[in-house]
Amino acid sequence: MARPFVGALPYGVRDLFLEEAAQLASLEDAWRQLFEAWAYQRIIPPTYEHYDVLLAGSGAELEEQVFRVLDREGNILALRSDLTTQVARIVGTKLHDLPLPLRFYYLASVYRYEEPQAGRQREFRQAGVELIGADGAEADAEVLVLAVEALRRAGLVEFQLNVGHLGLFHALAAEAGLGAGHLDEVRGALNRKDAQGLAEALERARVRPPVAAALARLPGLCGGPEILAEAARLSAHPVAHAAVERLQAIHAALERRELGRHVIYDLGETRGMGYYTGIAFEGFAPGLAFPLCSGGRYDELIGRYGPPRPAVGLALVTERVRLALGRGDPALGRPDLLVAAPVARDCWRQVERLRGQGWRVEADLLERSEADLRALAAERGIPCLALAATGERVLWVSAGHDGWLAWDALPEAPR
Amino acid sequence: MARPFVGALPYGVRDLFLEEAAQLASLEDAWRQLFEAWAYQRIIPPTYEHYDVLLAGSGAELEEQVFRVLDREGNILALRSDLTTQVARIVGTKLHDLPLPLRFYYLASVYRYEEPQAGRQREFRQAGVELIGADGAEADAEVLVLAVEALRRAGLVEFQLNVGHLGLFHALAAEAGLGAGHLDEVRGALNRKDAQGLAEALERARVRPPVAAALARLPGLCGGPEILAEAARLSAHPVAHAAVERLQAIHAALERRELGRHVIYDLGETRGMGYYTGIAFEGFAPGLAFPLCSGGRYDELIGRYGPPRPAVGLALVTERVRLALGRGDPALGRPDLLVAAPVARDCWRQVERLRGQGWRVEADLLERSEADLRALAAERGIPCLALAATGERVLWVSAGHDGWLAWDALPEAPR
Repeated sequence: MARPFVGALPYGVRDLFLEEAAQLASLEDAWRQLFEAWAYQRIIPPTYEHYDVLLAGSGAELEEQVFRVLDREGNILALRSDLTTQVARIVGTKLHDLPLPLRFYYLASVYRYEEPQAGRQREFRQAGVELIGADGAEADAEVLVLAVEALRRAGLVEFQLNVGHLGLFHALAAEAGLGAGHLDEVRGALNRKDAQGLAEALERARVRPPVAAALARLPGLCGGPEILAEAARLSAHPVAHAAVERLQAIHAALERRELGRHVIYDLGETRGMGYYTGIAFEGFAPGLAFPLCSGGRYDELIGRYGPPRPAVGLALVTERVRLALGRGDPALGRPDLLVAAPVARDCWRQVERLRGQGWRVEADLLERSEADLRALAAERGIPCLALAATGERVLWVSAGHDGWLAWDALPEAPR
Repeated sequence: MARPFVGALPYGVRDLFLEEAAQLASLEDAWRQLFEAWAYQRIIPPTYEHYDVLLAGSGAELEEQVFRVLDREGNILALRSDLTTQVARIVGTKLHDLPLPLRFYYLASVYRYEEPQAGRQREFRQAGVELIGADGAEADAEVLVLAVEALRRAGLVEFQLNVGHLGLFHALAAEAGLGAGHLDEVRGALNRKDAQGLAEALERARVRPPVAAALARLPGLCGGPEILAEAARLSAHPVAHAAVERLQAIHAALERRELGRHVIYDLGETRGMGYYTGIAFEGFAPGLAFPLCSGGRYDELIGRYGPPRPAVGLALVTERVRLALGRGDPALGRPDLLVAAPVARDCWRQVERLRGQGWRVEADLLERSEADLRALAAERGIPCLALAATGERVLWVSAGHDGWLAWDALPEAPR
């Protein structure tokens, strides 16, 4: 095979640098602070694991998308395609004895075979939380609040979480007596929002009319809290009842926090990871077809690895949030101050003091002249310059100033 | 093959959680702040690349250690074994037109086949900087200052950088007329600090006596700046002269910053990455046999991918620094405040205000009683408790206080 060109990258991965990398790092930093303020603790699973161990959790669904690696000892390994499964394994096998709930967050790369397109890469960054050991509506609400807060802190104003719950569909499918084949057909039509196909699938499955009508209504059950009342009337099954009651309690918790406007309910939505057992949600921004984040409740996943625990989680796709934001602030990764070589050398204590105050200080290492430093700062958009200095004073250039200043009289640090 | 036990991890990788993960994240956060204060910008290369492209930079040296992966399109990929090579590729192929120097930092996992042992895993985190486009002693010194500052900010007090320079060895090897076979033999004996083996190798190579004596002296040239004067007398070769002069200039720069005591010079050291062309260094802490960090000048690496650029860099092995620190502060990832469920629900604005001030606040989601909350806080070492609240006041428990307080009269945020 021909050697790849020295600059070629494999399909579906990218280099991130300058503004793009700074924007991504700044998003992760904001989210880390958010998650830690809510007492979530960092968790760092390995990049790869035994293929069989990962698959025991994620199920066949991701099988097609998993990167398999053969190691030198002959083991079949897999690059992680999902953090939730890894956290479930850690909790199930190593963390039985801790008081519940447990709260973990991660910032990590995920690997999936996908056809690369906007917002869809084979390696991408995810940031997420897992809340383990609490099964109430308040736990679901906490994760939804974090989804809203994470998108807000990213800088998004217009966005929406579509929250579904598998309970109503499961209850109606049970009432309809749908076998596996028909179940998949009905579910497929629902997920495609294909009313015609859904009606045909229900007819083929000979679902009796009132239940068929209820299932046929599901794709329309998408909107504000008012649809929850209608949903409550569709089935008397206890699983359906519990699902609608849960969504109503979640809505009350979100309304209390004045976040209701960011949420709609979608009871026709049955997609999401195969391990979801309760709510399942996705977040969208106007004009972007792909979800920025997704999550849900997975009360049976941890039990595949150890003692069962209820759990609910959220994953943000960092790169997609970055795309939703559009071009970042070009000042993000940029220095605040450029200092001439003699200043960096002879006044290093003063320069260090500025760094300690939050200034990003770049030292000239090429012994540039004053004119060259001014040109460089202009070209790179560096807003302040220290051109020369003594122990007491500095020749300082910034917006509206160009002259000697006492070191103690410098402007405030920009961050 | 038998299915691996559900909790089994492949050889050489680990799960990091609780204190260990918090300590690692806190190290990376401190380093990120340090690197950004020095105007380094984040760079995020992909986890894997074309094997041939990576190898074009890192050379045969790492070949044995590289994880190869075959993708579905039939390409041979490799998990990154080194960030420097990736940064060199990016700079060489994509960043020709920017004013120099460029400063990049990374926080990333690296993958190498190694026999796992303390401080040596097959997946490990590295934090590092690359300073590209400046070839003077001040650039070398900047990277060494960052190495010292990074270890200091990690919390280490006793540590030492061993700084070598390949120039003196190369000059003496040229004066000795050593061919490839003899060169490897001599270099091997030097790296093992094997005086006897070195003497024998020099004899086999029939090196003439004054040059042989100079080469035999190299292993002893390890110590403070005083050895630089002796090194200057060993060879009149211009490459040797430049090497010693460079180390003297670096020492002056470090002394000016009062960092001289953290550095020794080791002119018998010729190990390090194959692409090093000037200084090469490693950092050590007492009692640990493995280096905490390493780095060096690589003026020819970027030229393998595009227009040549001088460069110097540093990589810290995060896990090793963590081991050098010993057990972390158990408070690191721990909440500062536990709030009862009704407080979290009814006074969420006040709770959010505390989070905004830097408090890590955990909300009880299990409707625990006051007694259970007190027991939980004691068990987990959470220092403050909010047991009940009204709009104005909160039933607050912390060291030396147990009673109602106005929300405005709470203690300062702990961070």
